[in-house]
Amino acid sequence: MPAYKLTIEYDGTNYHGWQRQANARTIQETIENALAKMVKKPVRLTGSGRTDAGVHALGQVAGFNAPLTLPPRAFVAGLNSLLPDDIVIHSCQTVPDHFHAQYDAKMKTYRYRILNRPVAAAIGRQYAWHVPRPLDLQAMQQAAGHLLGTLDFKSFEASGSPRSHTTRTVSKARIYRENEAHLAFEITANGFLRFMVRNIVGTLVDVGLGKTTAADFEQIRLSADRGAAGDTAPAHGLFLVAVNYDASVDTPLSR
Amino acid sequence: MPAYKLTIEYDGTNYHGWQRQANARTIQETIENALAKMVKKPVRLTGSGRTDAGVHALGQVAGFNAPLTLPPRAFVAGLNSLLPDDIVIHSCQTVPDHFHAQYDAKMKTYRYRILNRPVAAAIGRQYAWHVPRPLDLQAMQQAAGHLLGTLDFKSFEASGSPRSHTTRTVSKARIYRENEAHLAFEITANGFLRFMVRNIVGTLVDVGLGKTTAADFEQIRLSADRGAAGDTAPAHGLFLVAVNYDASVDTPLSR
Repeated sequence: MPAYKLTIEYDGTNYHGWQRQANARTIQETIENALAKMVKKPVRLTGSGRTDAGVHALGQVAGFNAPLTLPPRAFVAGLNSLLPDDIVIHSCQTVPDHFHAQYDAKMKTYRYRILNRPVAAAIGRQYAWHVPRPLDLQAMQQAAGHLLGTLDFKSFEASGSPRSHTTRTVSKARIYRENEAHLAFEITANGFLRFMVRNIVGTLVDVGLGKTTAADFEQIRLSADRGAAGDTAPAHGLFLVAVNYDASVDTPLSR
Repeated sequence: MPAYKLTIEYDGTNYHGWQRQANARTIQETIENALAKMVKKPVRLTGSGRTDAGVHALGQVAGFNAPLTLPPRAFVAGLNSLLPDDIVIHSCQTVPDHFHAQYDAKMKTYRYRILNRPVAAAIGRQYAWHVPRPLDLQAMQQAAGHLLGTLDFKSFEASGSPRSHTTRTVSKARIYRENEAHLAFEITANGFLRFMVRNIVGTLVDVGLGKTTAADFEQIRLSADRGAAGDTAPAHGLFLVAVNYDASVDTPLSR
């Protein structure tokens, strides 16, 4: 059975996350249903990983084996005509049979957007966390600098979800002014713990508000104690931007 | 009765436009209901003008007379707590009794956003018209240059809505690349005919696609014939950006 890789953009607002669930509408299920309609057989889609309820993606990746061979462009056109308009297939490419969207992923990049002005937004309110009090960007940048390297991120893991090990390698982490009203935090790592980005953002915002300092931020991480970190930032500010693989199966984003 | 002026941002996706209607949910009605709840009496809101179903606003202006005096900030806080999250009051200020949001408006600025790439968008699909084929920005800019001045815009007026006169003064008109994927058209005039911006955009896109030329565009306007112009661009790409008044009652936008 030929293997394909999809790169997918979605607005997570109206979904209970990526992963198929019994009684809730999910992205995975919606695409699997569209695929089944196209090829007249059930198709199992393997995502690069879950995204939680309400989280968005600009470049989620998923793989599947098709019961028939079609040109990749036919999957793009066919799926986009069947999918609701909050899920868009950006590209499809053939990949080796052994491709596994989750296990083969080398790096992921997430972006978290914050609207930082006194008044909320109507336009784009679905795509940023509104923090009304002014944030000290420089202090947040200093704190974010402490995220780089191969480090234990246990403090930023959702409680009740212990992994065998909580060490991850963060190769990029920066927080910057996206425009007059928005800040954005972007982080690239070889893997992420559950709620890791949102817990980091919640703690960075504490730094930005002056509740803690950049030095405290580093101590929080070193403590390996979830209780020491800040609140989990809301889901709707988070975007899975890209998932990277070995050059042979990597897909440049069409934006 | 003290008079107040509101500056309002809204996402028009789920509304049948600004103006109160018998059997449809509108922005005006939604804010009037919130105001009535605040002051325990019916309040009539006068907008700077209608926006059509699905059109958004970053800076719509409306005035009202209140049956009681409150600090303007109380209206901002009170209304924002009562309104749904797709309508946000940016500011409130007291104005002279004779203020009229429509008749006193000196200039309005609209922006129209186009997503110009082969693949549609899931994120922000509510806020731009998707034109998949590549647009020639330079040709569109040349055409847009013909919009400046005191001119007859009859060709761009919705058919079946004749005004006493169809001459308007356009003081700014530019089309530019907003980012990698989006183009934006921004136009400022002392007034607009019904569907004028959307009809101009539809015709500019014909130029961008090479269906017509910038010189044709000027001929289309001169013909004073709606039938000569292009299709009406869809509502969801259009934003009322600002309404300007005499300096005494003008409000700077909080963005």
